[in-house]
Amino acid sequence: MAYDGGGYVGWQRQPNGISVQERIEQILKRLCGFQVDVHGASRTDTGVHALGMVAHFDWSTTSSLSGKELHRAMNALLPEDIRIVKLQSVPTAFHARFEAKRKLYRYRILNSNMGDPFRRRATWFVHGKLDLAAMRRAAKCFVGRHNFSAIAVNPGYERTTMVRRIFKCTIRRSGDEIHLDVEGDGFLYKMVRTIAGTIVEVGLGKRDAESIPGMLKSRDRKQAGRVAPAHGLFLVRVTY
Amino acid sequence: MAYDGGGYVGWQRQPNGISVQERIEQILKRLCGFQVDVHGASRTDTGVHALGMVAHFDWSTTSSLSGKELHRAMNALLPEDIRIVKLQSVPTAFHARFEAKRKLYRYRILNSNMGDPFRRRATWFVHGKLDLAAMRRAAKCFVGRHNFSAIAVNPGYERTTMVRRIFKCTIRRSGDEIHLDVEGDGFLYKMVRTIAGTIVEVGLGKRDAESIPGMLKSRDRKQAGRVAPAHGLFLVRVTY
Repeated sequence: MAYDGGGYVGWQRQPNGISVQERIEQILKRLCGFQVDVHGASRTDTGVHALGMVAHFDWSTTSSLSGKELHRAMNALLPEDIRIVKLQSVPTAFHARFEAKRKLYRYRILNSNMGDPFRRRATWFVHGKLDLAAMRRAAKCFVGRHNFSAIAVNPGYERTTMVRRIFKCTIRRSGDEIHLDVEGDGFLYKMVRTIAGTIVEVGLGKRDAESIPGMLKSRDRKQAGRVAPAHGLFLVRVTY
Repeated sequence: MAYDGGGYVGWQRQPNGISVQERIEQILKRLCGFQVDVHGASRTDTGVHALGMVAHFDWSTTSSLSGKELHRAMNALLPEDIRIVKLQSVPTAFHARFEAKRKLYRYRILNSNMGDPFRRRATWFVHGKLDLAAMRRAAKCFVGRHNFSAIAVNPGYERTTMVRRIFKCTIRRSGDEIHLDVEGDGFLYKMVRTIAGTIVEVGLGKRDAESIPGMLKSRDRKQAGRVAPAHGLFLVRVTY
């Protein structure tokens, strides 16, 4: 699925607003007449976007709709800010979250003289010169198995360990944007956005790249940078 | 100026909502203390975007702000969906509308299997195969000096002639988008969007490209195609 997270309280059902999961479950209920639980690979936060979210659900074999028809019907009924890019049948044992091996997130920073009206909902506008070499040195420090207590805000999902493995953390210039790609086996709450916020502080010269390993080791949230805004973050790919 | 027209009733002040002109005039009033009239090159309709709108205003020479400071202050106070790309002083005789020689509009059509959540506010999603060769033949028919009574809806601005000159009307594929570029000495109300709607009908095989010259000659609005949605249209450039 691809979705513009701007109008949602995130992927997962929340009491304070409509979530992407809820919107999709509403459509499936209209199509089959009963509640269908949709399980997403990742819980994207309020305002975070997706280009390649994956989810699974159990679909009644008594439905008269073929897979192709169901796919078309879902996109026809869903609002334009959510698209089911691909629909396929999977073995019963498949679980979108538990089977996910890697998740790739991209954080888009617009680094120009002035903001762009047409990218204001999909990039974080950062004015001022950014030192890309320093940002790359900082990004490398996040790669590997670490306890991310210094980075994660308010965890407390079902997994209690704060240890995650980051396979890749890279900085790339793309026109007037800077893209931070982070791929890992899982992410804690606001983890990618805190990595992005910390790396931008390095880029602006407010912090040394060399301070990152010590910050991670401290497990002290107060040592990390600010949380970058949600609207620059995209879940790009989930690998199984 | 560049602006996302999605939140505005168009360029010009209207009783039914906030316009881009009004928003800019509000900011200038805050900066100088009195009403400053801003004159735009073009009256973009509700929801139409701009990449290169031009406007002029008389600025009190008693202001203590330099041009650079005024530019910065305007962008700092304006909402993110309007950016003043460039601010420069011009001779007193300059008039953004009366001196404009050419205006270039671009209409963006997204022609893919499914819509894109991130381009839904900046493209017209057209599903189905489009015949580009036929669209190009249709586009050529609009070039030249014509009476556009068959195309214009509810004109009645200060100019009463329905004759306009189109210098260029081209169709270009750009990835999964099709761009219609129309450059002319001026445009009637909804004229570009009706050209776009008519050309798309040709692309979908609902109308022959060869019917366009007769349609223009008829001066009969009922013979033209539907008006394409506002959110696919951009004012790209004004030439003086």
